[in-house]
Amino acid sequence: MDIPEGVIDRLPKYARALGQLEAEGRDVVSSQELGVRLNITHAQIRKDLSYFGRFGKQGRGYNVQKLLDELRRIVGLNRQWKMALVGVGRLGRAILGYEGFSPQGFRIVAAFDCDPSLVGTRINGLTVKPVADLEKELCDGAADIGIVATPAETAQEVIDSLVRCGVRAILNYAPAFPTVPNGVHVRHIDPVLALQAMTYHLKADSGPG
Amino acid sequence: MDIPEGVIDRLPKYARALGQLEAEGRDVVSSQELGVRLNITHAQIRKDLSYFGRFGKQGRGYNVQKLLDELRRIVGLNRQWKMALVGVGRLGRAILGYEGFSPQGFRIVAAFDCDPSLVGTRINGLTVKPVADLEKELCDGAADIGIVATPAETAQEVIDSLVRCGVRAILNYAPAFPTVPNGVHVRHIDPVLALQAMTYHLKADSGPG
Repeated sequence: MDIPEGVIDRLPKYARALGQLEAEGRDVVSSQELGVRLNITHAQIRKDLSYFGRFGKQGRGYNVQKLLDELRRIVGLNRQWKMALVGVGRLGRAILGYEGFSPQGFRIVAAFDCDPSLVGTRINGLTVKPVADLEKELCDGAADIGIVATPAETAQEVIDSLVRCGVRAILNYAPAFPTVPNGVHVRHIDPVLALQAMTYHLKADSGPG
Repeated sequence: MDIPEGVIDRLPKYARALGQLEAEGRDVVSSQELGVRLNITHAQIRKDLSYFGRFGKQGRGYNVQKLLDELRRIVGLNRQWKMALVGVGRLGRAILGYEGFSPQGFRIVAAFDCDPSLVGTRINGLTVKPVADLEKELCDGAADIGIVATPAETAQEVIDSLVRCGVRAILNYAPAFPTVPNGVHVRHIDPVLALQAMTYHLKADSGPG
């Protein structure tokens, strides 16, 4: 079944909110309450979940633990994923130091840069390797996911290398829209695009511009 | 007219791709080519743009300059926006140093933290102020947009303060889903959610899990 990307993007949000509810000791939650927590309509939540089977009953709500287990299985949250980081500038170093990845099963196992003054340095327990060695280092399937924190100009080249190593998921921080073959997935982390999606509203709310 | 959020989220992407085409000296682009660049179907592009009027003709493509000007006006890209950053830890400092904001009209005008060892220090030309002074400092509409780079636990409190100062757009880096009143817009920058939206595919592609 072909499930819309928008649905897949929301599943991890549902899992996170359910994890919070579980931590609060809750057994049952309605789609209404879940919707308020996530700022998503309850109709959308019910529709999204209906792609994956029947969870909960009208008027009774969802069993928190059961739905959370199911979502974790569907999304692949109960596994370990290995990531390679390319670009160890200011942004890349913040990514290397980010403490939110490992509790969720995401581990950075290799870091690359083309700057000779960075290559060989140790950051958060990893020795930075030259980008020229990327394909050699990752050729044995050493990484499931690539994180690209390079300037826009080099992003496409780096992503092509990662794809040649069998990486099929790219988290792209570069302000560029690289092309990838079918079967390779890209998500963009771009604060400017997120800001610009809000200025539409700020502009609209403040009257004709 | 109520325009779906998904449409609004894509408009800045169209503007960015058109800006690249403009820089390449292109006069005309088809929805097909734009779609390939952005990994969005041409039918989606035509449908999204149809909310805002008639641009381009079937078989002729879009006038790059005209569509770009129109999108910039619609999204509010031809203005300056003032931002206040809350949280100046490792992530906050990377945000302060990010060079992609100002060329797009986004300027960080104030930075706050609750850590006494950070308050008073100067980072990228800004003196870090105590979070306790946030409402006093921003009460005169000093900021259009708030950037939240605090731990999850304090995000809601910080966002409530920002909203009391009249901030109506929040870029949230904290791994939390805070609630905001109607008319306040939030976008989440969360690399873990983006990764988890891809592991769905990695898991699915690699067979039953």
